[in-house]
Amino acid sequence: MYYLGNFYHKKKNVSFFGQYFPKENIVYPIESIFYPNKTGAAVSFNELKPILCIQPSKIVCIGKNYKDHVKEFDAKVPTEPIIFLKSPTSIIGPEEKIILPKDSNQVDYEGEIAIVIKKECYNVKEKNSLDYILGFTCANDVTSRDLQKKDGQWSRAKGFKTFCPIGPWILPFEVYPKYNSLKIKTFVNGKLKQDGKASSMIFNIPFIISFISKVFPLFPGDIILTGTPSGVGQLKRNNKVVIEIDRIGILTNRVM
Amino acid sequence: MYYLGNFYHKKKNVSFFGQYFPKENIVYPIESIFYPNKTGAAVSFNELKPILCIQPSKIVCIGKNYKDHVKEFDAKVPTEPIIFLKSPTSIIGPEEKIILPKDSNQVDYEGEIAIVIKKECYNVKEKNSLDYILGFTCANDVTSRDLQKKDGQWSRAKGFKTFCPIGPWILPFEVYPKYNSLKIKTFVNGKLKQDGKASSMIFNIPFIISFISKVFPLFPGDIILTGTPSGVGQLKRNNKVVIEIDRIGILTNRVM
Repeated sequence: MYYLGNFYHKKKNVSFFGQYFPKENIVYPIESIFYPNKTGAAVSFNELKPILCIQPSKIVCIGKNYKDHVKEFDAKVPTEPIIFLKSPTSIIGPEEKIILPKDSNQVDYEGEIAIVIKKECYNVKEKNSLDYILGFTCANDVTSRDLQKKDGQWSRAKGFKTFCPIGPWILPFEVYPKYNSLKIKTFVNGKLKQDGKASSMIFNIPFIISFISKVFPLFPGDIILTGTPSGVGQLKRNNKVVIEIDRIGILTNRVM
Repeated sequence: MYYLGNFYHKKKNVSFFGQYFPKENIVYPIESIFYPNKTGAAVSFNELKPILCIQPSKIVCIGKNYKDHVKEFDAKVPTEPIIFLKSPTSIIGPEEKIILPKDSNQVDYEGEIAIVIKKECYNVKEKNSLDYILGFTCANDVTSRDLQKKDGQWSRAKGFKTFCPIGPWILPFEVYPKYNSLKIKTFVNGKLKQDGKASSMIFNIPFIISFISKVFPLFPGDIILTGTPSGVGQLKRNNKVVIEIDRIGILTNRVM
């Protein structure tokens, strides 16, 4: 078992891509997250901390992809995936702070399973779409609920700076291809708030990738947020929000 | 008077940034469109053709920004700008083809005045926001009207490949600072369809930049589409659509 991600070397004050082997507690620096070859000398994980695991050219999100979440908002179950875009400038890494904007009175967490794209693709068939997955990571689709309702369009409400925590690292698809067995939980100040599994998605992962790729060409490092299960709720100042995906680990962020 | 843009040298088979002086009919190659210094030897414009004038990290759009267009759709006049994002993969240059997607039965043109951002900015005050404009260009916010209605969110309907023609070049703000005097027209097969002016916008250009910059950090080359005037309508195969902005010129694309 290994993970891919960015790591910061505390003493050397540098960051690098790496392959993290948790059992051995070591990280091998690699040339590029998309071509995990040519590894450098091993570094003890104790000397490192995981940082922002990827910088996407775009973040494509699927709305209303769990029936229980659709019910929460008395909305209709969609007949096709609902696509929206989150600005890449909303991304932060693990342990970074979520900043509440002045103009909003209600900012919610939305824990989600994120797909990281491995290779450029456009117009991909569903049966081939798994070939384009680098791996999975945790994401929080932070949303200003009042501005979402006010605007109708979600780009502002979901696009503020710090509104897309992701990480801490990527579970490679080749290590864990059973995408439908992924389980996701959200905790606020230690209390379980969301508890979902990929198998409950209305549109599953291969279908989503194919559907999106018929609209936008996808590039290495692009991120797809696959929707949030039920249990969304408000974040308040000093809250600690944790997204946990079974076999990946935890993404922790505090609210400011 | 001069323009900034990308030019393709037909004989040499290379492209470069340049300063185009239409009176003299020459283009000076420059190091970077954002730092228009260090010009190279002049090239006759006859040897060149304008291509995609800029590659943005994001395209931020304003919906419903002209009262007469809001009336067309029986919609409410917004009290704040409505922001949405167009995928950067939707961009094409002048003379490139707009491709109608199979899944849509109605694809419309929407001629718009586009702002090109000059310098990184975040949280800019309205009174300072003109400092961040590199210039203006023509844009077509091509929209699948049926998918827009179906999805509610506009990212798919406005995000297909080829759905954001821009160009042919940039009228620098320092050359023409009277942003409120810009006039925009759209022609389909030579017939005038839209005829608007920046002074009719509900939210004017300095306000829009300031408003957007409070949500997203903006980077050099980012594009803001400022909304479309009334007169939108359907594009059909083989149509020739022309967006004309007074003092800039014409952006021509055919439909496939």
